[in-house]
Amino acid sequence: MDRLKKQFDFIREVDGVKQIFRQTYLHDASRKENDAEHSWHLALMAVLLKEYASSDIDLLHVIIMVLIHDVVELDAGDTYAYDTIGNATKRERELAAADRIFNILPEDQARYLRNIWDEFEEESTKEAQFAHALDNIQPMMLNDASGAKAWREHDVKLSQILNRNKNTANGSAQIWSYAKKNFIEPNLREGSIKEDCILKMD
Amino acid sequence: MDRLKKQFDFIREVDGVKQIFRQTYLHDASRKENDAEHSWHLALMAVLLKEYASSDIDLLHVIIMVLIHDVVELDAGDTYAYDTIGNATKRERELAAADRIFNILPEDQARYLRNIWDEFEEESTKEAQFAHALDNIQPMMLNDASGAKAWREHDVKLSQILNRNKNTANGSAQIWSYAKKNFIEPNLREGSIKEDCILKMD
Repeated sequence: MDRLKKQFDFIREVDGVKQIFRQTYLHDASRKENDAEHSWHLALMAVLLKEYASSDIDLLHVIIMVLIHDVVELDAGDTYAYDTIGNATKRERELAAADRIFNILPEDQARYLRNIWDEFEEESTKEAQFAHALDNIQPMMLNDASGAKAWREHDVKLSQILNRNKNTANGSAQIWSYAKKNFIEPNLREGSIKEDCILKMD
Repeated sequence: MDRLKKQFDFIREVDGVKQIFRQTYLHDASRKENDAEHSWHLALMAVLLKEYASSDIDLLHVIIMVLIHDVVELDAGDTYAYDTIGNATKRERELAAADRIFNILPEDQARYLRNIWDEFEEESTKEAQFAHALDNIQPMMLNDASGAKAWREHDVKLSQILNRNKNTANGSAQIWSYAKKNFIEPNLREGSIKEDCILKMD
């Protein structure tokens, strides 16, 4: 039962990501979203939006990737996409977290999840690119639904969003095109996103 | 883009399950858990505990099942496992919810997810049995971690837990055995679960 004990130790430990809050608000702007909720939402989006992935992807692999992509924030905390100072030390903090957290598991599973997390971070496979596309689009969808509360609070500029999403079309050109039209463009018009450059539509 | 719009309508609609709270507390008893967090936890448990399933299961199918098993609570609310009155009307409320919520999706996906939800409810396939085992064990693990707060609040008796878990061993005999020894037995000894019958160990 030593193996099962290690697995339950990990399962209980990662319960803590339910208390790691992101900058994104829920659709009704009532409160911020946490990492567990965000990861559940991405996994469900992977199931429903798989048909728009730029290449033929292994859905199970993408789902496992999004389920675990944020567990490092248990130690490293959430770093807001547009926080320049936080992002300078993010990689180092998250590597230390990955070393500790995945190793709570039995060795084979620790290696397995760590490899998937590394793959997500490197963004080189088609599964990782699709996972990143979902990870970028989900908060954009919520930002739009919640009256752009987080964008306004952080005075976000279009160039920041475009820079953040420079690879989103690699994961899914169709979803990126939909997001520009439905989540970004209306908020530019309303001034909720600062228009410091021109949005190029497809 | 009409198809993608329906898919995003559904994705935004189910954001609401982040506000459906269960009776189970987080591991540190700081607050109750919501359905999105619970579903994320079950999906991750499916990945890590697949090796203990009583039969060879389709992991992707189990994951999709646990990701969507509680979306009906968006309309029907959470019904506590040991709420006799609530459970009498639960099925009717959840069927009406399923009819509305899944049909926000394009027809093929609505049918696909509805079939998976029906399969979970019927508990007849090995995937549904494993999903139910996880759905029962996860709150038990959290109850144990949180000092049995929910069990004590609801004055829960061993016979209620055993009745609730009468099929858990069908999903995974090993996990059920581990749970009895590590989550139930210590709480019986401490009086956090009322001992109205004798726990039969393996």
